[in-house]
Amino acid sequence: MKERKGILIVVSGFSGSGKGTIMNRLLKEYPNIYALSISATTRSPRVGEVHGREYFFVSKEEFETMIQEKKLIEYAQYVNNYYGTPKEYVFQQLEMGKDVILEIEIQGALKVKEVYPNTLLLFVTPPSAKELKNRLIGRGTEDEATVASRLSRAWQEVQGVEHYDYLVVNDDLEECVQKVHSIIQNEHARVAKNHVLIETIKAELKGFAEGE
Amino acid sequence: MKERKGILIVVSGFSGSGKGTIMNRLLKEYPNIYALSISATTRSPRVGEVHGREYFFVSKEEFETMIQEKKLIEYAQYVNNYYGTPKEYVFQQLEMGKDVILEIEIQGALKVKEVYPNTLLLFVTPPSAKELKNRLIGRGTEDEATVASRLSRAWQEVQGVEHYDYLVVNDDLEECVQKVHSIIQNEHARVAKNHVLIETIKAELKGFAEGE
Repeated sequence: MKERKGILIVVSGFSGSGKGTIMNRLLKEYPNIYALSISATTRSPRVGEVHGREYFFVSKEEFETMIQEKKLIEYAQYVNNYYGTPKEYVFQQLEMGKDVILEIEIQGALKVKEVYPNTLLLFVTPPSAKELKNRLIGRGTEDEATVASRLSRAWQEVQGVEHYDYLVVNDDLEECVQKVHSIIQNEHARVAKNHVLIETIKAELKGFAEGE
Repeated sequence: MKERKGILIVVSGFSGSGKGTIMNRLLKEYPNIYALSISATTRSPRVGEVHGREYFFVSKEEFETMIQEKKLIEYAQYVNNYYGTPKEYVFQQLEMGKDVILEIEIQGALKVKEVYPNTLLLFVTPPSAKELKNRLIGRGTEDEATVASRLSRAWQEVQGVEHYDYLVVNDDLEECVQKVHSIIQNEHARVAKNHVLIETIKAELKGFAEGE
């Protein structure tokens, strides 16, 4: 009776916002609830990357065929490589009742929302830009130029944040993971997601009214 | 910096859905977060009812003056009495950062949403109409005719449920209270409620980009 259909979620956020960590925690804590979408790419696998886990690694020709056959939810080109979200895997997971998370940037997010208006768009941010800068510096792995370039990219990324549904402040990681989890799970309580239940209750009440 | 503005919430639901109990639990558990709107009415106080607690008890003339002076968010007439939601108390509480709950029916709910589109509309329902019937019978306080009339009223009330934002199933009371609480609290994470934070982050990032 309570047939659960999965929800499509896009999570975006600044590099340094901690969104990757949040996704991993969600998948680890609720493996039966969430699935992470796996992107297709034409770039070469790096050491340790596995086809079908980090990415689906495909050739340029294969990718362009996927575009032509409309097998991608969205795609983009960075430098000389394609990146995209294959429909098939996402819809398989949604049908199984999984809530499927896409970790993509704003341009992709808006394309997804256009085609699938029920997509939930979340933007993860540190409590302030200063904190973002501190975290980027604190990593110790990036030189000054890289930090500057990431901050300038953050400036670009924040431009479309008004189009998102929720802004999640990542101050305390644990709290943030639970916040993201509850935002997504509450989406299942939306009236628009409960037509079957509503129609059932209506029919039952009608039956009572007719003296069943 | 994080200036919290309260959210306006309407909670509706069938008689027997347990919405009254849920409201009381929220107020008891989170007295600093929630306030319950107090209605004005022209009906006479019943034994034990206190002016300014259960209702603001006013005369017909006073009520009609409130209507004329647009001091009510919504109002309705039942039998020969007026019932309405005074603006002043609600907005005082919202300004103080309280999330203010109105417990009103669908006609009132839709009027409120029309004037204040950010109002969150929740509808509480038992898991099924059969369960609703059982609960009404189980109370033991209503005779058969009353149960029938409440069920027929439920049939009317359910007609507009599509206009609500969330459908909350009251199966387990504890779970339901926490569900309602998290739906309301997550509303504070809506992008539309976080303009100040977003503008601050934008300005900071711009500062970095300009080499501050």
